[in-house]
This record gives sequence, structure tokens and C-alpha cells, in this order.
Amino acid sequence: MHVEQMSGEQLQAELQALETRYAELAELNLKLDLTRGKPGTEQVSLSDALDGILGGDYRAADGTDARNYGGLDGLPEAKQLFAGTLGVPAAELLIGGNSSLTLMYAVIDFALGTGLRGPESAWGNEDEVKFLCPVPGYDRHFAICEHLGIEMIPVPMLSTGPDMDIVEELVAADPAIKGIWCVPRFSNPTGCVYSRATVERLARLGSIAGDNFIVMYDNAYAVHTLDADAEALADIREFCIRHNTQDSVFQFGSTSKITFAGAGVAYLASSPDNLAAFKKHLGFQTIGPDKVNQLRHVRFFRDAAGIAAHMEKHAALLRPRFQAVLDTLESELAGTGMGEWLSPRGGYFISFNSRPGLAREIIRLAADIGVALTPAGATFPYGDDPADSNIRLAPSYPSLEDVQATAEAFVVCVKLASIRQKLQ
Amino acid sequence: MHVEQMSGEQLQAELQALETRYAELAELNLKLDLTRGKPGTEQVSLSDALDGILGGDYRAADGTDARNYGGLDGLPEAKQLFAGTLGVPAAELLIGGNSSLTLMYAVIDFALGTGLRGPESAWGNEDEVKFLCPVPGYDRHFAICEHLGIEMIPVPMLSTGPDMDIVEELVAADPAIKGIWCVPRFSNPTGCVYSRATVERLARLGSIAGDNFIVMYDNAYAVHTLDADAEALADIREFCIRHNTQDSVFQFGSTSKITFAGAGVAYLASSPDNLAAFKKHLGFQTIGPDKVNQLRHVRFFRDAAGIAAHMEKHAALLRPRFQAVLDTLESELAGTGMGEWLSPRGGYFISFNSRPGLAREIIRLAADIGVALTPAGATFPYGDDPADSNIRLAPSYPSLEDVQATAEAFVVCVKLASIRQKLQ
Repeated sequence: MHVEQMSGEQLQAELQALETRYAELAELNLKLDLTRGKPGTEQVSLSDALDGILGGDYRAADGTDARNYGGLDGLPEAKQLFAGTLGVPAAELLIGGNSSLTLMYAVIDFALGTGLRGPESAWGNEDEVKFLCPVPGYDRHFAICEHLGIEMIPVPMLSTGPDMDIVEELVAADPAIKGIWCVPRFSNPTGCVYSRATVERLARLGSIAGDNFIVMYDNAYAVHTLDADAEALADIREFCIRHNTQDSVFQFGSTSKITFAGAGVAYLASSPDNLAAFKKHLGFQTIGPDKVNQLRHVRFFRDAAGIAAHMEKHAALLRPRFQAVLDTLESELAGTGMGEWLSPRGGYFISFNSRPGLAREIIRLAADIGVALTPAGATFPYGDDPADSNIRLAPSYPSLEDVQATAEAFVVCVKLASIRQKLQ
Repeated sequence: MHVEQMSGEQLQAELQALETRYAELAELNLKLDLTRGKPGTEQVSLSDALDGILGGDYRAADGTDARNYGGLDGLPEAKQLFAGTLGVPAAELLIGGNSSLTLMYAVIDFALGTGLRGPESAWGNEDEVKFLCPVPGYDRHFAICEHLGIEMIPVPMLSTGPDMDIVEELVAADPAIKGIWCVPRFSNPTGCVYSRATVERLARLGSIAGDNFIVMYDNAYAVHTLDADAEALADIREFCIRHNTQDSVFQFGSTSKITFAGAGVAYLASSPDNLAAFKKHLGFQTIGPDKVNQLRHVRFFRDAAGIAAHMEKHAALLRPRFQAVLDTLESELAGTGMGEWLSPRGGYFISFNSRPGLAREIIRLAADIGVALTPAGATFPYGDDPADSNIRLAPSYPSLEDVQATAEAFVVCVKLASIRQKLQ
């Protein structure tokens, strides 16, 4: 029954039932945690063959000794393999260390302090530097901006991706806006896949924005589908070529959620000019990334089909966990007006929107009975969710049993907070 | 015979003999390369057991799953192992990726843009930022400064390390000097080991310099001895404690020249306050370094004795290469006044000083007969060797036979250039 249609008596009865249920949960001394968007132990175990796969053969296909120095942009066969996940030519890829976040930070730091097109082009030369942040979004993206003194402007996230009407209007009006954060497939946290129209409009931003505008296109979940028929992502590079904006997009990816979260391989793709400039900058910081780990990944997967087959094994482990949360939300909250969510077909998160003003309270209620949820506001710039409504649920890491128990406790907290609010 | 004591006739006769010898070398179509300070193939092969050493056991001693996210400063047992190479407590160590250069860049970038002690302390707030660069030194250190707009002031390198009289005078007089580059053991390229007095005076700089001065103490060859009885390095940390300057020193090390040059583990050590501040900064750039590779290194070496035994194998491969160069220099150039050099007891380089004004010419002569040497000036800030005299020789990578052939061709070029200069 919809909470707005409940009578005072019904609300009171429901409150009592929920308080009883909540007290019962408190008795269980739960220790549950749905905060961490990291792969479960079974998932990382899928790649255990990585260590030792080289069998003493450390030579790349072109004869490069992967053990020694050099190779600032990566081994050719590794570039080939990873470029496939982003749908770009290998020549437009550069391989880094184990963290795509490090590459993102380096790109922003480069554009800000050094300049994508020489010192004159450094964002830091200007009085203000601003970034568009679709919300809810990924806290670590926002943290980079905050740390580097870049002002963040939130823009709404729709089921098709960022609200491009607003994005275009802001970007065209303010040349201090130097970029936008995107997680285009299975967005963190809403799980939406950007529509073809959104992708094209993102590709076109470079032509309407001020100088040196970049789309930070973090394709973290490029091949991370839960269902074989999940929506594909349109090819942003193709649109960039059409609109002559290739310099305005940096794409990122990694195997953090394909092989080992902490010991995978990260990479970025951009225009030849951007790559050349960034490579030069990177050359002051390193002699080259870990090529041995690149070679391990190549030997382990061989090709795109190898990655696809591997991702199906991840999906088999993740699907029931997502389903447990979604089924519980559906059976307990659908039609109640107490919350909204999407059913993602990939990625790592379920984004839940409570009634306005309740996210903090729900998270507090959960914490008090031993259920850790991502802090309220985490998905917004400066940790500020103006509606106090968004809660990010990350079901990948705990056991299926714990995910189920957490989901059940969560809906009790949501209902309790909602009914109490209604009764105020 | 000393070149200054040769008669005109003797010089002419020597010139003719050298030109004949040089022409003979030209006929050989040599393809030799003594530029690269990187380990040879036999050296990196010493660590081939790294890949596969985990045997499927990815758990650290404290139960941490090395495959997953986290652990911004490294696995405890890896910190313990690597701290030993720098002679610091594990609690004062932080582990990065595969490159100590990346850590050095990050520290300078942090001190410059973010500030070791908050935004007020950022070097970038001041009009000028300067660094002392002992010369000859390591080109990649100087490149970081140049890239980040830090003015470099060369100071002479003595056989005891940087000329500390000059260093202290400069540092005390100019608070814009924010740091000094050091390779304290088997300095790149002279091979000298800083004396105990030099180390203590470096440790004391923090007390006489302007605010937020740091010693960039790149202990790249901490355990890289050619001889078992090579000079030890005094403990800078002990001196820092004595002079209450612990915040003024950042130490760096890596296994790049212990295991795999491109796939090792890098680390830094500093005061608890510096580490805490730097870790916070680093947390915006990465979720954590590659712990799996850390674990491989721990299982491979077990302890300091394991590293020491391994380094003896490197020494056995390097010693004859260094000896080949040094013997040739000694037998062909000793007492001729045509050049000076030290005999390093460790590290990767031999530093040769020709008569003033001849380094470029010697390198050109060598290049013309197929012998690649490090470009003249590479060991000086801005590539400018005012005496045009220093040439860095790196005998580690080529085969012993090639090192011998290169050394022989090199001394012919040195003599030819010297005699020609004398005859002008």
C-alpha cells in the first residue's frame, strides 16, 4: 500500500510492527556491510591462474623483455587486448599501472597544471576551473576535483545519462567549465547506460565548450554485464570523429573488476595528440608501467572472447546478489512510495532514492543494528545530497546470505524511517 | 706518457697511430651501446621464479587478500622487508607501484602544489622555488625539476658526496631553495658513497634551511655492491633524530635493480608526519598499490639475508663488466692526463671526465663508429655541462664481450680527441 494512502491507524499499526521487527534485528547483533564496491573473494579467485601463467617466458610478441625497463605506453599485444574493451584502436591506448584512478588524476593534474596543449593551455592559468558532476555519481571522481581545487557543479542524472539539456546550456554559457565526469555504462551508482543520443551529445560538447574542455569518460564497467542482452554503449569515438572533437574525450578502463581489484591493469584512450602530450608528461614520472603484469593478462585472456567468457563467470556470481537486493526491494517497497531504484543490467551498484530527507536517517537506523551502508551524500560533490535521499548499495562483496540479510534489514529501516516521517 | 709532456713529434706520431686505429674500428661496423643504466638479461633472469611463486596463495600474513583493493601503504611483511634495505622501521615506510621515480615525482608535486603541511606550506605559494643539484647527477631527477618549473642550482660533487660547504652556504642564504637531490650510495654517476660527515650535514640542512626544505634521498643502490667490503652508508635517520629534522628527509628505494627493472616494487620512507600527509594526498590518486607483486617479493626473498644473497649474484654478473671498463681505462689512460674517473664499488655507472671541452667531441667520435654513449651534458641540469667534460658509462646491459669492445673503442676516441685538441 502506498504510504500516502495509509490512514493514521494503518500507519500506527505499521509503525508498531516495524519497531518490533527492528528490535528483533537489533537482537541478532548483525555485522553486515554493503558499502564496498569491490569484487568478492570468489570473483578474484577466478583469475588465480594469473600468477605463474608466464611459465618463465617473459618475452612479448615483438621480443620485448617484459622484465626490463621501458615501454611507456604498454606492450603492443596488451594494448590490442584492452583497446577492445573500450572499442578503440590499439594505437589510441596507453597502459598505466594497476589503477585507472591514478590515470584520471594524472590527466586532470596534467590539464590543470601543465596544459594539454602546452603551458598556455593549462586550466590553472584561469581564475576559476569548474567541472560538471552528474549526480548521483562516483565519490572518488568528485574527491579528485575537490583535492585539486576544481569547483563542482552537480547536474541531474537521468535514466539516459546526464541531463544533456542542462549540461549543454551550462557548458555553452561558462567557459570556466573544463570537463564532465561520466561513467557511461552501468553508471556508478545508478546503473544506467547512457543512451546513444547522450553519447553523441557528450562527444559534441568539445565543440560548444570553452578551450581545452574534456569529457572524463570512465568506462569502468565496459564489459561488466549481469545479463547477456544488457544494453550496449554507443561508440563515442565515432561521434567524436564526426564532430571533430577527438581531443575532448579521455576514456578510461581497467581490469580491476575483471581480474584482481588491486593488481590488475589500467589504461586510457584518447586522440593521438592527447596521447602524445600526456605520454611526454608521464615520461617525467615513470620509466614505464609493469609490463610483466600486462603480459600475464594477455596470456590469461588471449583475446576479447577470453574476456567475455571470463565476465560471464563474474556475472554468475554477481547476478544472485543483485537479484536478492532487487527482489527484496520489489516485494517490500514496490508501490509504497517509500523509495525508487533502477534494476541495473551490469556494474556494481544499486542506487536507491528514499523519500526526501531520509537517507541519513535510514543509514543511521541501519548502522545501529550493525548494517553498514555507504555514508549519505557520498554520491554527491562535497558529500552534499540536497534531497538527503540517495543511498548506494553495493552487493558484490558479501556472501549471498549476507546480501539477503542486509537487504531485508535495509527495507525495514527504509519503512521505519518513512512511516515515522509520515507520522510527524 | 702524459699528454702535456709529449713533444710535437710524439703527438703527431700518436695522432697518426690513433687515426689508423680509429679507421680500423670504423671498418668493423660496430653496434655498441653503453648508454643504458639497466640490468642485463642474465640479471633479470635471476628473479624469474617471481611469477608463480605464490602457488595460488594470495593471502598476506595478516589475512589480507592481496588480490583485492586496499592497503594504501603496503602489506606489513613487504614493508618489513623493504624497510630493511633503507635501514628504517617498517612503520616509516610506504610502498608504491613499480617505480620510485613516480614516488619522487609525487612527493615534489605534493610539496609544490598541495603542501607538506597544508596549503599554506606549498612551495608554489612563493615566487621562486629552487633545488640544489649535485653534479654530475641523475638526469631524471633534474627532469622532474625542469618539468615542474623548479630552478636548479648545480653544486659540485666530491668523492665524499656533495660539497657541503657550498650546500650549507647556499641553503642558509636563500630560503627559496627547497631541496637537494641525493643518490647517497654509489652515486649516479660518480659511484661515490657519501661520507658519514656528509650524511650528517645533509640531515642537519633542515635546521638551517627555509621552511619545508627536503632532502630527496634516492637510495637507489642501497644494497647494490660490487664488492662485499664496499663502503657502508651512514644512517641518515639517526642523524635526523639527533638534529630533530626528521621531516626534512624523504628516502627512496626500489627493487628495479634487484628483481625486475620494469616490474619491481618501489617505496619511500620519511617521518610519521610526512607519511601521514603524503598518504592522504596519495589516497586521492589510487585505492592502493599492487599488493600481489609485494607478496611475490616477500615470498621470493623472505628476509634481508635473501636479498643479500641475491645481490651477490648480481655482483657476479656486473663485476667483470665494470672491471673490463676500469682495466681498459687504467691501462690506456692512467697517467696520460686525458681523463679522470673513480672506481665504484657498487651501483651502475662509471663517471669519466675528459679534458675540458672534449665530452661532446668524444661522444661524436664514438657515435660515428657505432658506439653509443650517454649524450654529453645529460648528467647536468638543463643538459649543460659547463666544462663539457663528463661522460657517463653504463656497463651493465651489454654482454661482457661488447663492454670490452666498447671500452677499447672509447679510449681510442678519448685519446684521438685529446691529441687533436693538444695539437690545435
